[in-house]
Amino acid sequence: MQFKAWEGFSAGKWCAEVNVRDFIQRNYAPYDGGDEFLAPPTSATKKLWKEICELSDKERKAGGVLDADTKIVSSLTSHGAGYIDKALEKIVGLQTDVPFKRALQPFGGIRMSSDALEMYGYHIDDSVKEIFTKYRKTHNDGVYDAYTPEMRRARRAHILTGLPDTYGRGRIIGDYRRVALYGVDFLIEQKEKDKLLMDGDMVPDKIRDREELSEQIKALKALKKLAEIYGRDISKPAQTAQEAIQALYFGYLAAVKDQNGAAMSIGRNSTFLDIYIQRDIASGALTEKDAQELIDHFVMKLRIIKFMRIKEYNELFSGDPTWVTESIGGMGVDGRTLVTKTSFRILHTLQNLGPAPEPNLTVLWSKSLPEGFKAFCAKLSIQTSAIQYESDDLMRPEMGDDYCIACCVSGMRVGKDMQFFGARANLAKCLLYAINGGKDECIVDKATGKALQVSPEFAPVLGDGKLDFEEVKQKYENMMGWLAGLYVNVLNLIHYMHDKYSYEALEMALHDTEVRRFFATGVAGLSCAADSLSAIKYASVYPVRNGEGIVVDFKIEGDYPKYGNNDDRVDELAVWLVKTFMEKIKSHYTYRNSVPTMSILTITSNVVYGKNTGNTPDGRRAGEPLAPGANPMHGRDCCGALASLESVAKLPYEYARDGISNTFSITPESLGKND
Amino acid sequence: MQFKAWEGFSAGKWCAEVNVRDFIQRNYAPYDGGDEFLAPPTSATKKLWKEICELSDKERKAGGVLDADTKIVSSLTSHGAGYIDKALEKIVGLQTDVPFKRALQPFGGIRMSSDALEMYGYHIDDSVKEIFTKYRKTHNDGVYDAYTPEMRRARRAHILTGLPDTYGRGRIIGDYRRVALYGVDFLIEQKEKDKLLMDGDMVPDKIRDREELSEQIKALKALKKLAEIYGRDISKPAQTAQEAIQALYFGYLAAVKDQNGAAMSIGRNSTFLDIYIQRDIASGALTEKDAQELIDHFVMKLRIIKFMRIKEYNELFSGDPTWVTESIGGMGVDGRTLVTKTSFRILHTLQNLGPAPEPNLTVLWSKSLPEGFKAFCAKLSIQTSAIQYESDDLMRPEMGDDYCIACCVSGMRVGKDMQFFGARANLAKCLLYAINGGKDECIVDKATGKALQVSPEFAPVLGDGKLDFEEVKQKYENMMGWLAGLYVNVLNLIHYMHDKYSYEALEMALHDTEVRRFFATGVAGLSCAADSLSAIKYASVYPVRNGEGIVVDFKIEGDYPKYGNNDDRVDELAVWLVKTFMEKIKSHYTYRNSVPTMSILTITSNVVYGKNTGNTPDGRRAGEPLAPGANPMHGRDCCGALASLESVAKLPYEYARDGISNTFSITPESLGKND
Repeated sequence: MQFKAWEGFSAGKWCAEVNVRDFIQRNYAPYDGGDEFLAPPTSATKKLWKEICELSDKERKAGGVLDADTKIVSSLTSHGAGYIDKALEKIVGLQTDVPFKRALQPFGGIRMSSDALEMYGYHIDDSVKEIFTKYRKTHNDGVYDAYTPEMRRARRAHILTGLPDTYGRGRIIGDYRRVALYGVDFLIEQKEKDKLLMDGDMVPDKIRDREELSEQIKALKALKKLAEIYGRDISKPAQTAQEAIQALYFGYLAAVKDQNGAAMSIGRNSTFLDIYIQRDIASGALTEKDAQELIDHFVMKLRIIKFMRIKEYNELFSGDPTWVTESIGGMGVDGRTLVTKTSFRILHTLQNLGPAPEPNLTVLWSKSLPEGFKAFCAKLSIQTSAIQYESDDLMRPEMGDDYCIACCVSGMRVGKDMQFFGARANLAKCLLYAINGGKDECIVDKATGKALQVSPEFAPVLGDGKLDFEEVKQKYENMMGWLAGLYVNVLNLIHYMHDKYSYEALEMALHDTEVRRFFATGVAGLSCAADSLSAIKYASVYPVRNGEGIVVDFKIEGDYPKYGNNDDRVDELAVWLVKTFMEKIKSHYTYRNSVPTMSILTITSNVVYGKNTGNTPDGRRAGEPLAPGANPMHGRDCCGALASLESVAKLPYEYARDGISNTFSITPESLGKND
Repeated sequence: MQFKAWEGFSAGKWCAEVNVRDFIQRNYAPYDGGDEFLAPPTSATKKLWKEICELSDKERKAGGVLDADTKIVSSLTSHGAGYIDKALEKIVGLQTDVPFKRALQPFGGIRMSSDALEMYGYHIDDSVKEIFTKYRKTHNDGVYDAYTPEMRRARRAHILTGLPDTYGRGRIIGDYRRVALYGVDFLIEQKEKDKLLMDGDMVPDKIRDREELSEQIKALKALKKLAEIYGRDISKPAQTAQEAIQALYFGYLAAVKDQNGAAMSIGRNSTFLDIYIQRDIASGALTEKDAQELIDHFVMKLRIIKFMRIKEYNELFSGDPTWVTESIGGMGVDGRTLVTKTSFRILHTLQNLGPAPEPNLTVLWSKSLPEGFKAFCAKLSIQTSAIQYESDDLMRPEMGDDYCIACCVSGMRVGKDMQFFGARANLAKCLLYAINGGKDECIVDKATGKALQVSPEFAPVLGDGKLDFEEVKQKYENMMGWLAGLYVNVLNLIHYMHDKYSYEALEMALHDTEVRRFFATGVAGLSCAADSLSAIKYASVYPVRNGEGIVVDFKIEGDYPKYGNNDDRVDELAVWLVKTFMEKIKSHYTYRNSVPTMSILTITSNVVYGKNTGNTPDGRRAGEPLAPGANPMHGRDCCGALASLESVAKLPYEYARDGISNTFSITPESLGKND
């Protein structure tokens, strides 16, 4: 063993190279029992959580923000140590030096930072504003320098929405376990070795890669300093469970100090941590009560991760989400479950501390999960409604058994994959563009007084006769071709600038140097678009035009099959939409030769997208919400829960590798009476 | 005519598009007379020049720097108006708000800026240092983040020397005439149009180009503001000669406020300006005396362009050069001379103000130049030794008739070409590497106590026998292959970072948007290397080894033909060297698909290169200077001036398109007795 800290672990490949999965596979203890072993909160936990709840109350009363930095630009080492209650905290580290004080993170965009402060009654320090205006360009400025007029129009018209051009893209998950298992010095050594090997012809990509690697090494050095600020040394591997959780958390804390990303997920850590806890319990250094206390304190820290954001952002996401997603459970490719006692312990925080949206505890569900764990999850879901489920059986064949979820549905192998987050294209609105030849049904161009031409002038549907399905479908496909091309170009540009002006050095330092990149596009309005096509095909739909001749409404005669009822006639249209749009996306160059993927996952933002979409041929009124993710339109799935789920299940995962979300609420009674 | 300011000019293509050459061709008046029309300095000129001379004296007495900014970062609009003597100045504008106060320009490298200040007893403001360390990365930092260990070794060993990695690359010449002819608003409009057309797939190069164009437009807007600071409006075309010179100078001033480049040349302006002067003289608005005064005042401003540089830089360039090269005269492709009265006027400043190295007045010499101009040049050369000559007859076929010289020999079409400056590879030292298998003859590796292995381990020459010419030549060719590859990679990296961290937005705004880029490599030690090969071939050269077996000296028996005597036996070896190295360079990818070129032009830095080169097979002792540029080794050209020039003339310009320099001193008597 290279390090004393590794004593008691089974050795393997992981000892000579960074390979956390190998460490886990050789050392973890699957657990197939029930929740009877779990410990209640300690008095320290209760006291600490009460203090946090009081701060939360104060924050709410203060209008959403309790305190905010206006002068110190956040970095890994920008602040002194901060505590909630130093004497009680088993896991330390705050984003700034004061609890609930939001950090100043202007690299994504100085206007966003400044506006967010103003909204809550703060004023950004003039010198910071000057630095990030005169000397240091931000991601946002870079993007707007390169945008084309067409891109600006598409953005303004909300056919492309939620683009990460004014905020951090997020969705990049460092393998924070590496900090605990290897210590930072070893990680730096490995990166230095990688840099030596990264030789050859100095084409721009190679130069960029070498510079990024240098930035990663600097970030790792800063990570050590961050721990030193709290009086800890994480240069070497963690020796105890407490040290392991602490080191892992410092890694994550460094990430959120560096980046204000849309989703700052944390990975798949509980089974990894279980190995340390089991070792300490076996040696008598830890009791179950101690172990639960560590996990409770760790989770408390994750619950109070906060960013400074503008109110529009919170509106788009219906709240102030941070998406600290922790992926739990799942099955190994060798057939053993990855559920451990710490999978229970981390879910148990929902009981010890009460329910909470963050961290976003996400169970990787499999038919093969141990019954005890399944029962515990079901019980907690009923008690708290605070668990997210993802299909491990669907993802494991693609991703193996050491992947995790970013945000809500984006699967990535920990430390091996990253993604370029891509927000969404509005497919419902795209159908209206197909009908109107790219003229927006909602926006009047001030210059001409007519409907804004967003795309090039495509041939619109003419006349007032019944819409012809084949004609509309062909026009729709053409318009999707345009939209996909523009969308990819916008994202290429955004991610180029994000890398240039707001590179996630610390998070990427906790990835393999050769990383797989996903180019994560997404669609919104799938069910609305499918139902609209169905209406045109199976009912009689007539366009209603305004004075200018723009189709602004539809007259629908007869009924039509609706997505969400396990009816192939319309479900096939939804599948066609997913496949067609993804094929169009794939036909383009994607930045850094990333792997194009697609998601169907608007969990909350479907409301905003709906606001900017006119009347649709399915009878939906202008401004009404679209359905979230892959959900059927609200109230149209009337053949029971199973039929609704069957429709969603037909969507091909191979064409939507970034995930398909289905938001599903059901009364316990519907599931039967057996307890 | 679109603008009233253009009244009296012949219209043409130049009225609808940016096309200064077309304007010149349609409007200039060739002059084939003598210097008899020239006017002496006005009293205002004399007084102003005296004040400048006094400041220069003070500066020398102060140790080289009279005043320096330590806090205000130089930009186009960073300073208020500055004057030498406001009442006297016909052309206004200084680099800072105080004459001879050097500007602070940290974008190339904060350490360089800070060190330069310290050397002269100043201390950089802490907040500036913090900004350019914590928030704003510089060119220099970017380069060092990406350098490989091999690059660092080659740099340290001085086989690659003078790389622009700690200072601005320079050598980019805006077409400053455009500011005068079109006014800035028109130039902005054209760039906006170009940006609209720059559409299509957003690959990284396209994104970069769009962002650069945005930066160019911002720089043009700042240029207008710079003029406003001096109470001038350059948004519209210049109406008078004075306005034209002033506008042109503002363009140049903006460039030197933006960039501390190694050579900040100004272009080819005198014939362009002559058109304005002729128009004003014709209308009676200007007398010859007035015209000369404008030119004298303009030249005074160019004489006091100064940058803050470290002493090592000044050593390398044997002084504190700025290379404000102005290209004068030449012939048009239609056979008319481009010499005008203002070609005389600008050279006449050497009489009115006395000789000076700056601006670097460079005559584009042709056999066909008017006799009167030739005579005037010859007279001034004898009087002042302050004129540089370049062969227009050689360059015109490649470059047309609107090119100019950057620095000393680099020809570029004004506003249409730019270059990535590449400093030099030391071919004499490369020969020693070929003999020693890439081990440095001067540097001991501290780690091993042995000669530093700079290249990979190539097979060295073995034994103590007479060096075999064919063996050495083959090994030399191999080593040149390695050196050329490394050299291109180093330059790719440097220019990538320069674009990223210190992009010349203003200078590039005064270029066509689609510009031709040269990748300007260079060689040093040509004659030493050629003579060394000649010695090995025609005399008997034996290696002398040190204890480690490194060849550190040579025993030469017999004589050998020396370059500089019109002897094909050795001159062919020089030609072989130039062709071979250029072919090796051309075989690699060059940044932004630039056109690889080569220069043979070390005018002063040959001294430093020689210091870092061991004993060579031609008998030159370690540390002794190499010959400058393409010059024969000092004292070895013993067959007369003509034979010396003939040897140099054999070097193929097609393989050294960035220029071949020959520094030539001769006593007037040698040229004959005829006056």
